Amino acid sequence: MTKLLLAMLAVISAAMPSHASAQAAGAPGAQAEQFTPEFQRVHTARDPKHTPRIEAPDSVRRGEWFKVTVTVGAESMHPSLQEHFVRYIALYKDSVEISRVYLHPVYSAPTVTFTIALDEGGALRALAEPTHSAAWEAMRKISVVP
Amino acid sequence: MTKLLLAMLAVISAAMPSHASAQAAGAPGAQAEQFTPEFQRVHTARDPKHTPRIEAPDSVRRGEWFKVTVTVGAESMHPSLQEHFVRYIALYKDSVEISRVYLHPVYSAPTVTFTIALDEGGALRALAEPTHSAAWEAMRKISVVP
Amino acid sequence: MTKLLLAMLAVISAAMPSHASAQAAGAPGAQAEQFTPEFQRVHTARDPKHTPRIEAPDSVRRGEWFKVTVTVGAESMHPSLQEHFVRYIALYKDSVEISRVYLHPVYSAPTVTFTIALDEGGALRALAEPTHSAAWEAMRKISVVP
Amino acid sequence: MTKLLLAMLAVISAAMPSHASAQAAGAPGAQAEQFTPEFQRVHTARDPKHTPRIEAPDSVRRGEWFKVTVTVGAESMHPSLQEHFVRYIALYKDSVEISRVYLHPVYSAPTVTFTIALDEGGALRALAEPTHSAAWEAMRKISVVP
Repeated sequence: MTKLLLAMLAVISAAMPSHASAQAAGAPGAQAEQFTPEFQRVHTARDPKHTPRIEAPDSVRRGEWFKVTVTVGAESMHPSLQEHFVRYIALYKDSVEISRVYLHPVYSAPTVTFTIALDEGGALRALAEPTHSAAWEAMRKISVVP
Repeated sequence: MTKLLLAMLAVISAAMPSHASAQAAGAPGAQAEQFTPEFQRVHTARDPKHTPRIEAPDSVRRGEWFKVTVTVGAESMHPSLQEHFVRYIALYKDSVEISRVYLHPVYSAPTVTFTIALDEGGALRALAEPTHSAAWEAMRKISVVP
Repeated sequence: MTKLLLAMLAVISAAMPSHASAQAAGAPGAQAEQFTPEFQRVHTARDPKHTPRIEAPDSVRRGEWFKVTVTVGAESMHPSLQEHFVRYIALYKDSVEISRVYLHPVYSAPTVTFTIALDEGGALRALAEPTHSAAWEAMRKISVVP
Repeated sequence: MTKLLLAMLAVISAAMPSHASAQAAGAPGAQAEQFTPEFQRVHTARDPKHTPRIEAPDSVRRGEWFKVTVTVGAESMHPSLQEHFVRYIALYKDSVEISRVYLHPVYSAPTVTFTIALDEGGALRALAEPTHSAAWEAMRKISVVP
């Protein structure tokens, strides 16, 4: 069904005049048909397939390297399909981005282990952005001792 | 302690039935159904919708900033659809990556203007990777004068 | 001077025992010496060299492609040096990331032009992260008409 | 209107004296002083601190998820310093990029574990790009059985 739609789109777009430069898809505003409310804001409600799971120690020493594994989603692995996959997983400490991994549609599974060190305690945050919506966010407290 | 928790998680997740629509972690080898030959190697043959178009001067002064615009594809803009879009555009000078932009499925059009400076002449190369295949590559000679 | 320090660091780190695997830099916690308050949170105060400048229309039609140029900083171009450069520039619409470009230390200037389309009005936000601090953020209102 | 504003900005910025410490936009060609031969091509010669180490099985089943850990460098962990760090680690299967992680100057250690699945045997390649040179590359054969 999806493939049929894509095939139809391909035929339609091949038939449409294209003056390139900045007009990716025919009539001005035509891209609006691609928007859905799912894309409008980061999702913080818990969803078993999309909310990232953060595995990390509860407490670490300041400046000590430790591992953080982030997996999408919290209860079952999000699929890796050409038409539906996790684009990237990013790890933050409060507002500060620490590491970000971009994934392949079919060769990557949405789980990654980073090695990081922290300056002060707070919230580890993971953002995972699938292709069909804005990012999903999870949080996990961590304390840092001297 | 963390290792113990991780080991427990591994046991639990191995024991859980998984029937995600794509079975990211279903039967061993199930992901193989997602592979297609399109993903196997970088495409260098010219394709009007996927080969990137590189706009740049023919010649620049060494160390002088200049603009390079890369657009996918060479003749008509590649669509930006939730299930079919350009993941990233990367600009190389021969083997060296200079800049890379990651794009949004529906809010980004696959065209970007970078500002760069070069050390020596050679080939500007652009790689653009859509969601349904390996990257498409284009090349454009540039000379650098002192 | 900086080169001297780096050379000294190289000598010191060569002299230090390394058991690799997870211990990047000798004694547990040794990485703490690299932390500075500059890295602790995103900067929103205006700084002429680090705050990004966002050039975009004040109003666009829903679903219409338009250009956004982000330059670091607002008043003079941030340098591109091996030891001090802008790592990436990311463009958001409110909480949603639209495009992100990673830059080269010496071959890239920190200015980029994206082409985007919007669903609804709000704030375009640009984040630019240099090597010596957390990201700097700028905002610019945009309205979207049907 | 936007074009007029942009034109005015261009005139103003051309008229403004620029004396940033690095003169990103100073005398034409000034950026040339930042170039070194280290940046000119990808390094494949073995270097204990920069060549990535790839840990992966020798053989996997087609479509089976498995872990790949890439660490920089092969014999001792590369430092994570504000002025000298590993910008990203990318994992390829022959010419095809599978996953790429961008790292923080001081909060990230240059080691990451990806989970991937393969279609056919060949060479796993890891590229790691530090701030002071072009990327360093390593390779490791892997076979894929049905």
